[in-house]
Amino acid sequence: MYDMTIRLQTDRGISLYEQIYGHIKGEIRDGKLLAGERLPSTRSLAEYLQVARSTVESAYGQLMDEGYIEPRPYKGYFVCPMEELAGLEGMQGAFDDGERRQDGAGRMFREEGRRSGFPESLGSSQDTRSRGVRDGSPAVIDFSPVEIDMSGFPFSVWKKITRNILTDANSDLFARGEAQGDLGLRQTICRYLHSSRGVDCGPEQIIIGAGNDYLLLMLEKILGRHVPVAMENPTYIRSYQIFRSFAYPVVALDMEQGGMQPGRLREVGAKVAYVMPSHQFPTGTVMPVGRRMELLRWASGEEDRYLIEDDYDSEFRFRGKPIPALQSLDRQGKVIYIGTFSKSIAPAIRVSFMVLPLPLLKVYKRDCAFYSCTVSRIDQRILDEFIRDGYFERHLNKMRKFYRDKHELLLEKLVPLEKRFTISGENAGLHLLLRTKENVPEGELLAAAAGAGVRVYGMSEYGIGASGEGEDAGSIGKGGKPGAVLLGFGGLSLEQIREGVERLEKAW
Amino acid sequence: MYDMTIRLQTDRGISLYEQIYGHIKGEIRDGKLLAGERLPSTRSLAEYLQVARSTVESAYGQLMDEGYIEPRPYKGYFVCPMEELAGLEGMQGAFDDGERRQDGAGRMFREEGRRSGFPESLGSSQDTRSRGVRDGSPAVIDFSPVEIDMSGFPFSVWKKITRNILTDANSDLFARGEAQGDLGLRQTICRYLHSSRGVDCGPEQIIIGAGNDYLLLMLEKILGRHVPVAMENPTYIRSYQIFRSFAYPVVALDMEQGGMQPGRLREVGAKVAYVMPSHQFPTGTVMPVGRRMELLRWASGEEDRYLIEDDYDSEFRFRGKPIPALQSLDRQGKVIYIGTFSKSIAPAIRVSFMVLPLPLLKVYKRDCAFYSCTVSRIDQRILDEFIRDGYFERHLNKMRKFYRDKHELLLEKLVPLEKRFTISGENAGLHLLLRTKENVPEGELLAAAAGAGVRVYGMSEYGIGASGEGEDAGSIGKGGKPGAVLLGFGGLSLEQIREGVERLEKAW
Repeated sequence: MYDMTIRLQTDRGISLYEQIYGHIKGEIRDGKLLAGERLPSTRSLAEYLQVARSTVESAYGQLMDEGYIEPRPYKGYFVCPMEELAGLEGMQGAFDDGERRQDGAGRMFREEGRRSGFPESLGSSQDTRSRGVRDGSPAVIDFSPVEIDMSGFPFSVWKKITRNILTDANSDLFARGEAQGDLGLRQTICRYLHSSRGVDCGPEQIIIGAGNDYLLLMLEKILGRHVPVAMENPTYIRSYQIFRSFAYPVVALDMEQGGMQPGRLREVGAKVAYVMPSHQFPTGTVMPVGRRMELLRWASGEEDRYLIEDDYDSEFRFRGKPIPALQSLDRQGKVIYIGTFSKSIAPAIRVSFMVLPLPLLKVYKRDCAFYSCTVSRIDQRILDEFIRDGYFERHLNKMRKFYRDKHELLLEKLVPLEKRFTISGENAGLHLLLRTKENVPEGELLAAAAGAGVRVYGMSEYGIGASGEGEDAGSIGKGGKPGAVLLGFGGLSLEQIREGVERLEKAW
Repeated sequence: MYDMTIRLQTDRGISLYEQIYGHIKGEIRDGKLLAGERLPSTRSLAEYLQVARSTVESAYGQLMDEGYIEPRPYKGYFVCPMEELAGLEGMQGAFDDGERRQDGAGRMFREEGRRSGFPESLGSSQDTRSRGVRDGSPAVIDFSPVEIDMSGFPFSVWKKITRNILTDANSDLFARGEAQGDLGLRQTICRYLHSSRGVDCGPEQIIIGAGNDYLLLMLEKILGRHVPVAMENPTYIRSYQIFRSFAYPVVALDMEQGGMQPGRLREVGAKVAYVMPSHQFPTGTVMPVGRRMELLRWASGEEDRYLIEDDYDSEFRFRGKPIPALQSLDRQGKVIYIGTFSKSIAPAIRVSFMVLPLPLLKVYKRDCAFYSCTVSRIDQRILDEFIRDGYFERHLNKMRKFYRDKHELLLEKLVPLEKRFTISGENAGLHLLLRTKENVPEGELLAAAAGAGVRVYGMSEYGIGASGEGEDAGSIGKGGKPGAVLLGFGGLSLEQIREGVERLEKAW
């Protein structure tokens, strides 16, 4: 058992429970307390530290809340597995085994509300929302890959910060802000990106905007017209739709060994490649460092070649060493880094950010700086304090635990189906992939599930060329081909996951 | 003296003071109590109604807060002049004397933070904010036409609404919303537009977006590429910059008799005309109904002709009958109506809205509906309640009074300068136009003012072709031509206005 030596101070105005909480948290983060290790019982630690037992209980409670430790019946308190925390130290160069991790060693989670192949216009967000976990006992169990769990959202904290900010003292917040977003938030995001993603930039390179879609609209103004874009296939369909709405020629390159091949990029004459290296959607593939370097070399080959790194869910990774952003390897100013808080906090928090390489920043300042910022300054300030005061990190840790529990239950429940389906994509955040071994067409799987009151999502929806996109580059499991379906679990309760999989077993 | 007969009810759960307040407000709104009329003293009304004097005082206090009545020393309480209130009844067809109003009979006010010829990138918003009224006694007095008065902002109300909305019960607010904006807010805006602007539309035609700039970006996707746009000259330069960033050919048509001439539109082959009929910026011209009908006829001439009505400051009009929106006259579905809350509430409230005619709505749904809404659902809900609960109307009435006082003081202080300057643009919201009678170039006026520690704004900034826009269609008072300057007063205190004009008198 770990020997807990805490130097409690009574003269620092910090409550004893906070000191205990802080100490244990530090030990976990420094790796001195390892995943699965047992903590002393509240009673014994209280005696040892000469404090009231309730004091230790509060500290443990806080640590449980934040997903650092978990109770096991009759056993005590144990450290939760989480090698990656939001605030990372010394993770640069931690790049060793992308391949292995890709083979499923690492489980990744995502809660990106926007990662849907179904445009909201098709009503899917409406459907999933109205049928999602929030309305109690839904007739249909919807394994939507776009729903997230809001039950963990720290409303009271958000309220408190908001209340403090909405004072007459801050009346200037209601005046116009800077076009790129307020400096304070840009500095905070800059620090966060550096420590958690290894992103190397200054606040002046950051553009804050109301959602990735908007940032891509800005990017169109910066990159110019008719830029040939290459996308991974399958991919995040909304970005595809957006590039199409720019009248950009879009080429779909099938995923091969962890990503698109630079050779193909040259063949098709792409100028911009849109990639999700840390965790490709929907396949969940992690791009190995070798492929990353190849892509960077390709981009350096011509002045107007760029890589758009959509780092949409880097926060939701559980096991294995953290994977620095592609941008952190970029020495030539070739990577446009895009991130969002839509999934790490909530889809309704319409705050995304883009890190521009210096050449493009120059173009932005010349041609786009008159576009006023699309995020209210109040929301910017709330988010800024939410991050700076450590609430963001706590929220992330808490959500990791929520989603890990759901993920593990789903995997466990799916075991009986493994005879007839290949289950993959554990890397792929809040959903898994099931691929039939018996050439059952996707359509039949969806229909059978629907018949049993379960909604699952066909992989073909995410293939460019699929869902009536007017192209036909490598759509997947489409038509008669052996089907693959996505099972999302973010918005479902444990009970719904249990019930849903049982329905599927009967149906399939 | 007006005979005040109020049927006070003690059984309706409405406090006596609220009943008195509501009754008097109603009388004013119904025109039974007229501008300048004297109210009974609190003492006499209290005796008459058999209530405590403090009850009447609270009612009067509330009415003063909202700008319905004002106290005059040693005289008592008087009804404020305000023929137009936010919630208008029977104003359709109130269209009679656009011309007369245009000749200055009507004073209009605006507080549009965005109506600047200076992109934020040029630092003007920063400068004006840091030098504005908020930081006490500024060295430079900045007659910025873009600053607004935030001292009247109802922070406590905004906080209260926010607090009530941020409850776990509303956790669904943190999930994705509808692409066009949430139905509730669209319905509220729809009602508001109908009653206050005569706009005829359904909520399904409304697109909510984070600012006008963003809505224009959407419009580019809807209208398509290379659409020849005609703009009034001088105009709102940011819209001009935005159309240019679309690679749209932009033609500047000089203002003639209340607007651009449809004949010229045909000559230049414009497909879209961007107009501000209720109150052109920066000239403050009101487009007469005849010209409006001509423009609508022009638009009906071809299927792909449209009018963009930027109704940016319709809320801030004081005298004369209200002017319905151009959209209210449109029977052919030719007007794209754009409005914003940036100025009527605060620039930081990044909520604008666009009413699409049905043909364009169809295009939007087909080509753009996958763009997720740029306004957070929380902000949408806060705004929705702010309007529905009547706070928006109260705020507007209050601000009208604030700005009217500043406007009147400025006019009064400017009298001595009338020998050497033509003062115009009383229609033009939160600023006035001064035009030299002695052919003093604009540059000299600006320099002399700056020397005296006053910042004024050259009219040439608003001329298309000016400020290095690379064109040269009718820039105004530019270079050596007789100068005209804008004096904005929205963000200045009465004391600053007094001091500022005195400095100008010495300088000029």
